[in-house]
Amino acid sequence: MRAMSVAGEPRFDARPIGPGTVCVVTGGLGFIGSNLTHRLVDLGATVRIVDALVPAHGGDARNVAGLDVDVLVADIGQAVVADAVSGAHVVFNLAGQVSHTASMIEPERDLYWNAITHGRFLETLRLVQPDVRVVHASTRQVYGRAIRLPVDEHHPANPVDVNGVAKLAGEQLHMVYARAYSMAITSLRLTNVYGPRQRLTSDELGFLPVFIRTALENGTIKLFGDGSQRRDCVYVDDVVDALLAAAGEYGIGRVYNVGHAVDHSLAEIASVLTRLAAAGGRASEVVLSPWPGDHQRIDIGSFHTDSGLIAAELGWKATTDLADGLRAALAFYREHPWYLSST
Amino acid sequence: MRAMSVAGEPRFDARPIGPGTVCVVTGGLGFIGSNLTHRLVDLGATVRIVDALVPAHGGDARNVAGLDVDVLVADIGQAVVADAVSGAHVVFNLAGQVSHTASMIEPERDLYWNAITHGRFLETLRLVQPDVRVVHASTRQVYGRAIRLPVDEHHPANPVDVNGVAKLAGEQLHMVYARAYSMAITSLRLTNVYGPRQRLTSDELGFLPVFIRTALENGTIKLFGDGSQRRDCVYVDDVVDALLAAAGEYGIGRVYNVGHAVDHSLAEIASVLTRLAAAGGRASEVVLSPWPGDHQRIDIGSFHTDSGLIAAELGWKATTDLADGLRAALAFYREHPWYLSST
Repeated sequence: MRAMSVAGEPRFDARPIGPGTVCVVTGGLGFIGSNLTHRLVDLGATVRIVDALVPAHGGDARNVAGLDVDVLVADIGQAVVADAVSGAHVVFNLAGQVSHTASMIEPERDLYWNAITHGRFLETLRLVQPDVRVVHASTRQVYGRAIRLPVDEHHPANPVDVNGVAKLAGEQLHMVYARAYSMAITSLRLTNVYGPRQRLTSDELGFLPVFIRTALENGTIKLFGDGSQRRDCVYVDDVVDALLAAAGEYGIGRVYNVGHAVDHSLAEIASVLTRLAAAGGRASEVVLSPWPGDHQRIDIGSFHTDSGLIAAELGWKATTDLADGLRAALAFYREHPWYLSST
Repeated sequence: MRAMSVAGEPRFDARPIGPGTVCVVTGGLGFIGSNLTHRLVDLGATVRIVDALVPAHGGDARNVAGLDVDVLVADIGQAVVADAVSGAHVVFNLAGQVSHTASMIEPERDLYWNAITHGRFLETLRLVQPDVRVVHASTRQVYGRAIRLPVDEHHPANPVDVNGVAKLAGEQLHMVYARAYSMAITSLRLTNVYGPRQRLTSDELGFLPVFIRTALENGTIKLFGDGSQRRDCVYVDDVVDALLAAAGEYGIGRVYNVGHAVDHSLAEIASVLTRLAAAGGRASEVVLSPWPGDHQRIDIGSFHTDSGLIAAELGWKATTDLADGLRAALAFYREHPWYLSST
């Protein structure tokens, strides 16, 4: 059951994730991490969460309420994390700061959370559990403005904000450790992700949670500019599938885009949400608004991910279309209204 | 005399560097910084050096002995640096940690010196002197192993060591500030640089100072592997020319390669040095040696920079050929023998 590396050495335990598999999920109380944790528990895995619960980063212990998991509240750069990763088979490294605008207001803070702590974490892994399988969550923000669409992994990485710079450094540190120390690491550049368990009350975590919140509150979905910028949005269950696909025996030392084959304009996305919210007995409207302050300076225009590489090499592709995913998300938040008032 | 930005706003004082120009050189006690400082003083500029004199980074106050310059011994991330940059017309930001092997031994240290302190420095510039002209020294190490030769600026940046990751983050922070805040910043990716005022006694600052030292000491030039790896080496006076060319009114927000049109194998470079050293009354020999420890893991193989973009846009190209440059370097070190015993 031990997979072989390119060089033919035993590398890591490539058993499918299930009973007996010990998984560490950093950022496991956050949006994507908690959805992954639910899935891992369903699969029978033992889950250890490491989450610093940094205010505004999106983590909340209620995201894993009722699950039998260990939670270590710690920064992944802390020494105590060695205990959590010791004996682990798979590490899903999803911890990080995700706000683009916050990264421009406090640049060093973003470099700390997305690069420095990841460097420390990689050192911990190298020293404590070097044969662990690692999947790291990167972001399509590392590309910056697209110079061609769709954007594949060969597209230049020219981030437009400090978040993109710091996330790229964090991703590249993972790849340096993969090559220099033959560690079994894969990184996924995630596009805009939406679905259950996302912090809705912040305006800093991307446009999707803001759209969903205002649709649910019967409010106004405000679009900056003319709403013509396009994004390929991916439902969080599809992202969980991608993380699991990337934890297998293939894709070591590789970086993959994780996005959706179908893109939509922000106006279309808002319109779908308006329609779905109205069907739920509410109405909302879409309003165009000028760009506030300096936000446009770090806007990347239209973006569409080419996720053909992960499809070819790991067999993953997004299967949830936008309307189905948004419908499921709205239903989840109606059943869990605390997400609309959480601070 | 004020240049206009793309948007038509006055941007910075684009006067040629000369009497009345206030220049800040970070890392100004180091190899490239001190050579630049000598030139700037020759041009009549007022020079303020900021250098942390971090042991092993290559700085030494003797490199600017006899020059009338201000020296602030400080980390560029410190608040006191605001005084040095206040009122400056041009900042040459050359501070940094350059050892690839050291970056793997102390990864966080490299991230600190090449990324974090540069983020702090950019914040200082933005707040104190946002219209200053800035030239940043990056490195061809950001590319990692070449997937095609010669390597132009569109080549993917996949660093093989922490130094490359951190330098790329530092460079990209400069570009984020250039775009987001309309600051007049240019970054140069320097290839292997050699010449006077380089710390020769460290084995961690690249192969060229080691070769030069051992040639001068009548010792053995030891080559790892078969000596067939190729590099385009550039004489420091040419690099100073490039830094001055990049401080003008063109190239804002751009990143340029700075290398030599002619590349050589390491065996050829060692052979040229052997011949030159012998002509100076000494003899040395070239010995092939296996790679020590993990060094090969972060070796990038052959590399050849394509510097056509800076030639086309800024009119710079390297004019010193290898034998002439090495001859001048050897002559300098014979006149200044303390470089062979400095610790």
